[in-house]
Amino acid sequence: MIAEILSTGDEIRSGALIDSNSAYIAQLLEASGVTVSRHHSAGDDAPVLIDMIRDMAGRADMAVVTGGLGPTSDDITSAAAATAGNVPLVLDPEARIQIERFFQRIGRPMSASNIKQAYFPDGAVCIENPIGSAPGFQQRIGTCDLFFLPGVPAEMRKMMKESVLPAIKKIQGDDVQKSRIHTLSTFGLTESATGEKLADFASAFPHIKLGFRAKFPEIQVKFYLHGPDHDALEKEIALAIQWVKQRLGDAVFSPVGASMESVVGTLLTERHATLAIAESCTGGLISHLITNVSGSSNYLLYSAVTYANSAKINTLGVSRETLNQYGAVSEQTVTEMALGIRSAAGSDFGLATSGIAGPDGGSDDKPVGTVWIGLATASGVTARQFVFRFKNREANKQIFAMTAMNMLRRELIKEHECN
Amino acid sequence: MIAEILSTGDEIRSGALIDSNSAYIAQLLEASGVTVSRHHSAGDDAPVLIDMIRDMAGRADMAVVTGGLGPTSDDITSAAAATAGNVPLVLDPEARIQIERFFQRIGRPMSASNIKQAYFPDGAVCIENPIGSAPGFQQRIGTCDLFFLPGVPAEMRKMMKESVLPAIKKIQGDDVQKSRIHTLSTFGLTESATGEKLADFASAFPHIKLGFRAKFPEIQVKFYLHGPDHDALEKEIALAIQWVKQRLGDAVFSPVGASMESVVGTLLTERHATLAIAESCTGGLISHLITNVSGSSNYLLYSAVTYANSAKINTLGVSRETLNQYGAVSEQTVTEMALGIRSAAGSDFGLATSGIAGPDGGSDDKPVGTVWIGLATASGVTARQFVFRFKNREANKQIFAMTAMNMLRRELIKEHECN
Repeated sequence: MIAEILSTGDEIRSGALIDSNSAYIAQLLEASGVTVSRHHSAGDDAPVLIDMIRDMAGRADMAVVTGGLGPTSDDITSAAAATAGNVPLVLDPEARIQIERFFQRIGRPMSASNIKQAYFPDGAVCIENPIGSAPGFQQRIGTCDLFFLPGVPAEMRKMMKESVLPAIKKIQGDDVQKSRIHTLSTFGLTESATGEKLADFASAFPHIKLGFRAKFPEIQVKFYLHGPDHDALEKEIALAIQWVKQRLGDAVFSPVGASMESVVGTLLTERHATLAIAESCTGGLISHLITNVSGSSNYLLYSAVTYANSAKINTLGVSRETLNQYGAVSEQTVTEMALGIRSAAGSDFGLATSGIAGPDGGSDDKPVGTVWIGLATASGVTARQFVFRFKNREANKQIFAMTAMNMLRRELIKEHECN
Repeated sequence: MIAEILSTGDEIRSGALIDSNSAYIAQLLEASGVTVSRHHSAGDDAPVLIDMIRDMAGRADMAVVTGGLGPTSDDITSAAAATAGNVPLVLDPEARIQIERFFQRIGRPMSASNIKQAYFPDGAVCIENPIGSAPGFQQRIGTCDLFFLPGVPAEMRKMMKESVLPAIKKIQGDDVQKSRIHTLSTFGLTESATGEKLADFASAFPHIKLGFRAKFPEIQVKFYLHGPDHDALEKEIALAIQWVKQRLGDAVFSPVGASMESVVGTLLTERHATLAIAESCTGGLISHLITNVSGSSNYLLYSAVTYANSAKINTLGVSRETLNQYGAVSEQTVTEMALGIRSAAGSDFGLATSGIAGPDGGSDDKPVGTVWIGLATASGVTARQFVFRFKNREANKQIFAMTAMNMLRRELIKEHECN
């Protein structure tokens, strides 16, 4: 079954509001074995809406339309649907009862304008709205089943789950194709390098469509596949994961699409290890990401954002001579920062960053994008320099933080392998 | 001029990713006097893309298409555009030079698959991508000008502003209605409370359409207006800002849509004041936000993420008795944290947070969403408790951080008013 989605409203058309309804609907439909082919948005403009509804009905097996079912004058979806289907608008007694019940429930008088919400295209079937005033409706135009729902996300979501999905199931009968999207998280290769390493994926896995998504600074590798048998899909995915991991090696930091901070968190938890962080150029971002993971208070003991040299000296015990001789962005300073934070916190690992996020502060010697990362462990301390070519402050903070967490991740895996 | 927008990619089609590009593009186009009529999304599916591009070219004066210009096999937009325009794909020498220059700039070898990104429909004109590897192109099909841009938001945004808008201006000539969208940033009132306080806006400013956008945890108030005279629009906006500020008072923290961290940064800079932060529940988020502002190293001296009690004791000098008697989330502890960080850093202001971000760790007494915020200044220390009703960790971190920065902002304004 092929589906299309239409979201209506001037705030979406003009860009004042980002349409998140369509993504939600697409996910639900795809998970139910319906292939979503196109999304559309249009404003509260009758000729455009009529045109779009007719086009969708001509192309797709089903469609979901959101918005424009309210009581005000700019709510014109039902009228457009009636015109598109060449039928009159008629009062739906069931819808009228539901609207009256809604106002009884919230204890407010029903206003005359709400009666308008009970008028549907002739032949349409009312869809109950369990939480709002606007019922939806299901209408057949040609060979296409169209579901019209309000645009309020909470109402739309409930009606999708409680009414639209069961109706689709009935239409599908036994002939259901399961769909699966699987994501792997990678870091360290460019999108094009990733693509080249996986160039012969299609011949190895002809039933999986491969996709790439740059979710800076990660590159996500995505599998899109569908078939009638859930277990067969999962088996195919497991084989494809192994295949991709062989090609991309250590760049795959999560075969199940997890974030770097949760991967690091899991590794620390498994090893009963604790962490302390000294951030200069990353300005607290590593700590923020690490603490986004629930339970991070079990392994993150302490983290210091030591922007000023005085803070590096007083809090981390970096020596004034080191700062004078080598500067804040140096192997020597970041080494002392990593050792200093580990010792101050009494943690197993001490992670430190010092670099130039920009846009100012770069030099020929140390351009914007330069970062030193230090990692202190029970067995010593290592420091590495990386130079990224971004001029943008936030981009540099993101990639510095990711690189630092990745260095910790590699250390945690290595320690494990040596045991 | 009528425009349409098409965003491509399986992750958008399938709902794995919410399309925010189209809203951004729609806003820019509308602000430039172009009427956006329809948005569409489709996957990496050649027949569908060809069909959509042809339909748009037949209906609209111009179109913006994003995504599918990368080096991998699922990037098929250029090929679809060529077919839609009935022209062959040809190597664009200018695009090739730009791609080569990009790889020189980032100091990585250009791989063979990147050459694919220099193939455009015959007759198309290259659009420079100043920050990424994928150039865009402008193609005319029938009477429609189509602009093809990469889907990476940062690249698309830069190219919209630097290339597409100037090209549109050239097409428009002198016959332009100026459009303006103006944003005010507010914090502290719900969206419905904000709406109610501004209920009679329409009668006071009949030419301005009012909009609200929840950009959690902010509520943005937006003015949409257009007319032929730039100065008249700006005058109207200035009056409307005054009107809104009278109704919403201190909730308006920026009348020009700036972020809280940049407002606080400007106030600190103006007053030559320095800041230190002790974060518990916010886990580094306040520091991350503050350091997103370029020049923040001038006022942020030091910040400590003191998750563990030991870190609160050792780094901030919080007394063990206080922690034992009152707990980490208490007026007493956050007071000592604020005083401790201010004294450790030698800063003018010491800001501290201690709370329960969740999802675990709450109690009847101190439920998830409880936060104590302390602010130490030259004249003493104040602590305030806030209880939010979110159960979500990231939402709580966001609103705790915003509330803490807002407390600092109010102090900075108050100090100024007293001088």
